[in-house]
Amino acid sequence: MIQKHLQAHRASLLGEISRKMAAEAIDSLLVTDLPTIRWLTGFSGSSARLLLAGGQAALFTDFRYREQVRRETSGIAIVIMQENLGRELATSPLRLGERMALQADHLSWHEMQQLSDALNARRFHPVVGFFDGFRQFKHLAELEKMKQAVACSEQVLEEVIAMITPEATEIDIAAEITYRHRKLGAEKDSFDPIVAGGVRSAMPHAKPTTAKFEPGSLIVIDMGCIIDGYASDQTRTVALGSVPAEARKIYGIVQRAQQLGIDAARDGITAKELDAEVRAFIAAEGYGEAFGHGLGHGVGVEVHESPRVGKAGTETLREGMVFTIEPGIYLEGHFGVRIEDMVLLDPQGATPLQGFTKDLIEL
Amino acid sequence: MIQKHLQAHRASLLGEISRKMAAEAIDSLLVTDLPTIRWLTGFSGSSARLLLAGGQAALFTDFRYREQVRRETSGIAIVIMQENLGRELATSPLRLGERMALQADHLSWHEMQQLSDALNARRFHPVVGFFDGFRQFKHLAELEKMKQAVACSEQVLEEVIAMITPEATEIDIAAEITYRHRKLGAEKDSFDPIVAGGVRSAMPHAKPTTAKFEPGSLIVIDMGCIIDGYASDQTRTVALGSVPAEARKIYGIVQRAQQLGIDAARDGITAKELDAEVRAFIAAEGYGEAFGHGLGHGVGVEVHESPRVGKAGTETLREGMVFTIEPGIYLEGHFGVRIEDMVLLDPQGATPLQGFTKDLIEL
Repeated sequence: MIQKHLQAHRASLLGEISRKMAAEAIDSLLVTDLPTIRWLTGFSGSSARLLLAGGQAALFTDFRYREQVRRETSGIAIVIMQENLGRELATSPLRLGERMALQADHLSWHEMQQLSDALNARRFHPVVGFFDGFRQFKHLAELEKMKQAVACSEQVLEEVIAMITPEATEIDIAAEITYRHRKLGAEKDSFDPIVAGGVRSAMPHAKPTTAKFEPGSLIVIDMGCIIDGYASDQTRTVALGSVPAEARKIYGIVQRAQQLGIDAARDGITAKELDAEVRAFIAAEGYGEAFGHGLGHGVGVEVHESPRVGKAGTETLREGMVFTIEPGIYLEGHFGVRIEDMVLLDPQGATPLQGFTKDLIEL
Repeated sequence: MIQKHLQAHRASLLGEISRKMAAEAIDSLLVTDLPTIRWLTGFSGSSARLLLAGGQAALFTDFRYREQVRRETSGIAIVIMQENLGRELATSPLRLGERMALQADHLSWHEMQQLSDALNARRFHPVVGFFDGFRQFKHLAELEKMKQAVACSEQVLEEVIAMITPEATEIDIAAEITYRHRKLGAEKDSFDPIVAGGVRSAMPHAKPTTAKFEPGSLIVIDMGCIIDGYASDQTRTVALGSVPAEARKIYGIVQRAQQLGIDAARDGITAKELDAEVRAFIAAEGYGEAFGHGLGHGVGVEVHESPRVGKAGTETLREGMVFTIEPGIYLEGHFGVRIEDMVLLDPQGATPLQGFTKDLIEL
């Protein structure tokens, strides 16, 4: 049923994209980033190029995927490549037309040159972020998949929190997260899990180490998985035993900041305005310097996608968007706290997809 | 100790690369592929650009890595980027000179344009595969790390083979492989493990499914891990219970073909000659059509790197190279067999890094 809704959605997207191409006087567009191809066609193979022209789509892949591509897609032309992409394009079922666009940020300089050579020194029109405005808005069927990914990851979080002891290491817990995501039906992690205890919790992008958890310290767990092509992302900070008063205080500030972000998110606010509201709150509490990253980011077929919700976020947040709200306070050499949910912007405001408690858990 | 040897090796590599640059009249070269940067500097961060000029190296990264980059590297300049790469290059400690080269296959068309804009519409010289000739030859310290990765993966293989039962699924075993690699000290898998039973063993790049293993069928297990930046890669095909005579026969052919590949590999043979020898043997046995991929590939900081050992492999294989030998026979709709070792080419010929039995294991 979800599959069917998604197929109808994809067909209508092709129409909208075609109109945007016409508005920008683009006759054909070669899509080279795999997440966009999966989003638009359902094809999950690692070898894929998608040509859009005249309201039609043609997917180029290799013989390894000849069965899979027919199973996963519908309503588009399939080309199993016999030679290089340039030659295949030259004899493509779709007309390239006068003005052919390439995704300049998803194609190497070398591949662009090879295509140009194969197409009689053709010059291309570069586009960047062409699909952002479409991918930002989630269809209900997409949302359903993201909710499945969230449910999977919340169950895993609950299981691994119970495994945090003074004998366990960060890598132990990270390995369990990956393993349990998989066993519960996820394709894979949406990114390498972050499990950062003690002083390492103060590093927003810490890699798990062989360090054991120290009683009385905080542990940041940032994790997500992919189900049917759609990602989840969540962070909780937990304590092993009782933590000092300062840690509790900081935890409380981050918890209130995160709730403030959820409450302030609404249709029509810009990404940087939302970021600024939360940032101002943390600054007023005296920790402005200690919140060194953006408030959040869109999530969909990629775990980091448009809109970026940060200081430079010029996009207006709109109903139907899904993005994270994840403030943090990091005291270098001491500890850090981050709390993150994904939220859906709907007529009622921002609704978190996660339901996991945000009160401090002391194990 | 290994670290020290590697540092000395890297310093001498910088000298050799500098001479190759001079020979090609390249004044400066911006390295943008992360595996090459790790290979040449030891830096494992995800944000890295390396400028080579005048026999010197400057590594550009961001503030997240300011501690890590100093811990992991030595003898090179470090720039913590304050603004975009183009502006940083314009004020770089190293002179860009007249002719600046970029890795055309490891840089997007968009990033090339941005660099050009930031550097007064500068035109760049594209290079492709510039480092292959260096990376192919392994230093003893690199070999040591690859042997550690092989040992880790062989232990995991032994453990997971014991878990193959009619109740287990392909995903179960794949999840165990990832988990156990990590628990045994690997950074991660070197690629998503392939665990393909029954008819799926006939697909060289099968993704693990929720299918259970059927008694009397073959299972292809292709796996590897990364330790300290260096990869391993190995394949074994095992049987659950007793398999039909045809499967045993095919297994025997692949086993002999793989040994033939090891015996035929020697300093001075070209990659395609080696591929052809094994291919001819399989064809003479009547299964030429069923061996649809190349014989092997180099392994190092990437699990697939130069030299490619296949029909189009023009490179001459030389002492000091490490590559895989992995013939397979795939009977679509029935079953497949692949056996793969990594080998080191040395004065005695090709020495497998793996020691795991290649006789058919019937569980």
